[in-house]
Amino acid sequence: MDLTPLIQPADSKLLVVLMDGLGGYADAEHGSELEEATTPNLDLLAHEGVTGLADPVGPGITPGSGPGHLGLFGYDPEAFELGRGALSAAGLEFELRAGDVAARGNLCTLAADGTVADRRAGRVADDEARGIVDRLQDGVRLDGVEVFFRHEREHRVLVVLRGPGLDPAVGDTDPQRTGVPPLAPEPAVPEAKRTAELVQDLSDQVSALLAGEPRANGLLLRGFDTHRELPSFGDRYGLRAAAVAIYPMYRGIARLLGMDVLGRPSDLGEQFATLRDAWADHDYFFVHHKRTDSAGEDGDRARKIAAIEELDAVVPDLRALSPDVILVTGDHSTPSQLAAHSWHPVPVVLWSERCGRDDVDRFGERWCLRGGLGLRPMKHLMAIMLANAGRLQKYGA
Amino acid sequence: MDLTPLIQPADSKLLVVLMDGLGGYADAEHGSELEEATTPNLDLLAHEGVTGLADPVGPGITPGSGPGHLGLFGYDPEAFELGRGALSAAGLEFELRAGDVAARGNLCTLAADGTVADRRAGRVADDEARGIVDRLQDGVRLDGVEVFFRHEREHRVLVVLRGPGLDPAVGDTDPQRTGVPPLAPEPAVPEAKRTAELVQDLSDQVSALLAGEPRANGLLLRGFDTHRELPSFGDRYGLRAAAVAIYPMYRGIARLLGMDVLGRPSDLGEQFATLRDAWADHDYFFVHHKRTDSAGEDGDRARKIAAIEELDAVVPDLRALSPDVILVTGDHSTPSQLAAHSWHPVPVVLWSERCGRDDVDRFGERWCLRGGLGLRPMKHLMAIMLANAGRLQKYGA
Repeated sequence: MDLTPLIQPADSKLLVVLMDGLGGYADAEHGSELEEATTPNLDLLAHEGVTGLADPVGPGITPGSGPGHLGLFGYDPEAFELGRGALSAAGLEFELRAGDVAARGNLCTLAADGTVADRRAGRVADDEARGIVDRLQDGVRLDGVEVFFRHEREHRVLVVLRGPGLDPAVGDTDPQRTGVPPLAPEPAVPEAKRTAELVQDLSDQVSALLAGEPRANGLLLRGFDTHRELPSFGDRYGLRAAAVAIYPMYRGIARLLGMDVLGRPSDLGEQFATLRDAWADHDYFFVHHKRTDSAGEDGDRARKIAAIEELDAVVPDLRALSPDVILVTGDHSTPSQLAAHSWHPVPVVLWSERCGRDDVDRFGERWCLRGGLGLRPMKHLMAIMLANAGRLQKYGA
Repeated sequence: MDLTPLIQPADSKLLVVLMDGLGGYADAEHGSELEEATTPNLDLLAHEGVTGLADPVGPGITPGSGPGHLGLFGYDPEAFELGRGALSAAGLEFELRAGDVAARGNLCTLAADGTVADRRAGRVADDEARGIVDRLQDGVRLDGVEVFFRHEREHRVLVVLRGPGLDPAVGDTDPQRTGVPPLAPEPAVPEAKRTAELVQDLSDQVSALLAGEPRANGLLLRGFDTHRELPSFGDRYGLRAAAVAIYPMYRGIARLLGMDVLGRPSDLGEQFATLRDAWADHDYFFVHHKRTDSAGEDGDRARKIAAIEELDAVVPDLRALSPDVILVTGDHSTPSQLAAHSWHPVPVVLWSERCGRDDVDRFGERWCLRGGLGLRPMKHLMAIMLANAGRLQKYGA
């Protein structure tokens, strides 16, 4: 349902704490990481609130970071898209404009016969890569179109074309394997023919400029994308929204939704201080905790448990700010058994004075399963938060 | 969500065991048939896997065999249709072609005044009916159109028209009650006018040919339908799929989806042997167990419990084949209290190495209700199986 017509003003404050990749699964040896973590403060929240499980995108679907966050913010992840290029640009605070075409680039090693020898150029160091990217920015010139190269990390580069008549429907040049030459950029629609030619020209110029490099002598491009206008979170829900995140991508997603991205915190303590300082001036706060996902991606069960416990420890400080509604969940699961994102539903706890109670008093997948929120699409949670915040009018007479 | 763009290859094998009409309901006297059956092997699967309940089509909807199976195979039963004529043809291994019009026919008894005296011609015996159907095939001639009569069982006959310009939008001639004459076939759209006239001509010729028959002296037609192209299951999911079923209709449904329909097994033991022989050459196996439904339809509670226990006994053999993902469920409920299909949700158990665990260790409706899969539309299960089989890529960047 479109919530915007039902939005009513209120003084309430909403706090969302997202533990990236929070969800996991039990197996014959272990409970999930969350089930085994010692989380007295989250358990108290579960006891005083309602719990449940959420499918971030859909049953069986393993979400990337974009769709997982969109669902949490109440945007249907099947209807709104955040492409690789747009996410990279957002993460670098590079403001894409309407008509721009952006792609994720990899510096790569090409063999003498022109085939790809290493798709990541030996994970070239940041300093070296930055110098190479600067040379590309200075050296590549395209006909009638501006081109921007921005270094991300290691071998990763954002490439943006800006000018009239561009179309992002161009196939990757990254063959996704070694021993074969880069792909020719193919237009998927006739309108993208010129863009594909420009991409080919760009790739040729890069190879010529980097011919003398021992490792990073080529560039592979993938995920051509354009700027997509997302409806403003603030307008949609009548909220002054703020994000407190460390990592560029999550800051970028929040910025794409029009949230205020606060400060430059570098750890959870600084995130809390940033949040506290901004408390009076906003209604909705999105706190992003990355370390759960990084640990899960590394298959490091103990570190994921520790990252959960680290977050648990700041919950009393967060509650001391007196938010009216608190939601703690993840954007997707990252079970340490799989060392990757997964499709498993994500545990959710919601607290407010009026949320009701269930019989669940521990925060963890197997208990949330019996919680008052049930098993739901993630995108449902935004409306439930707003309702608890007194910000949704009655529907119908 | 359209899963096809997310499909990635894998070596995993998926096994679906469908107990037809598995679901039931508890009442003041009894648990459901599944709850009361002794099923140590299915219970172990529930213990090691996750359980849930599925709505085959939608809440409160009692599915026919077509929609129940479509949901299980991940086809939205509201978007894809398997008409009576198409199902009959599939069950008889009669290959409908584009443009054919098929209907289910009943041999009936017409009284001297032309009204229907018995809609099933006293459930005429197969031998007698077959002879009559042969006479119809030899005797009926239509203008510019081929006609095929195929005997199914007892009074049931498949009728197919083949030729240019046919349209299935023709109303039934079966009045669904006795004491009234057969209905004139009415075109629902102008394009079906000629088809309706051909159907009237056919009915008249049948009555003339069978005028001397004591019982089966007429033919009532219903469910005019045409060949519908269903997207191939194999293409949709990147699976080499095989069906091991005894009954023609289920073999037919699998064939309509492009599955390989294996062997001609006549009992569960032969089904298992067929499955084992084909194991190396396929990725997805659909095993259909009919006896649960037949017993439920007969209102025979004890026989339905026995049919469930019969299936339970082969589970260890099935697991010994080392499938990566196992799903056991039904296509709909057939509670013996109702002696008919019903709308009650169907119990589901899913097992894989990475499916997670819930606290459920018995397979039955009241326990599945608290399982990790929750209560879901049946069509969700296909994506969850594919995810567990490592066959779905991440969605979005």
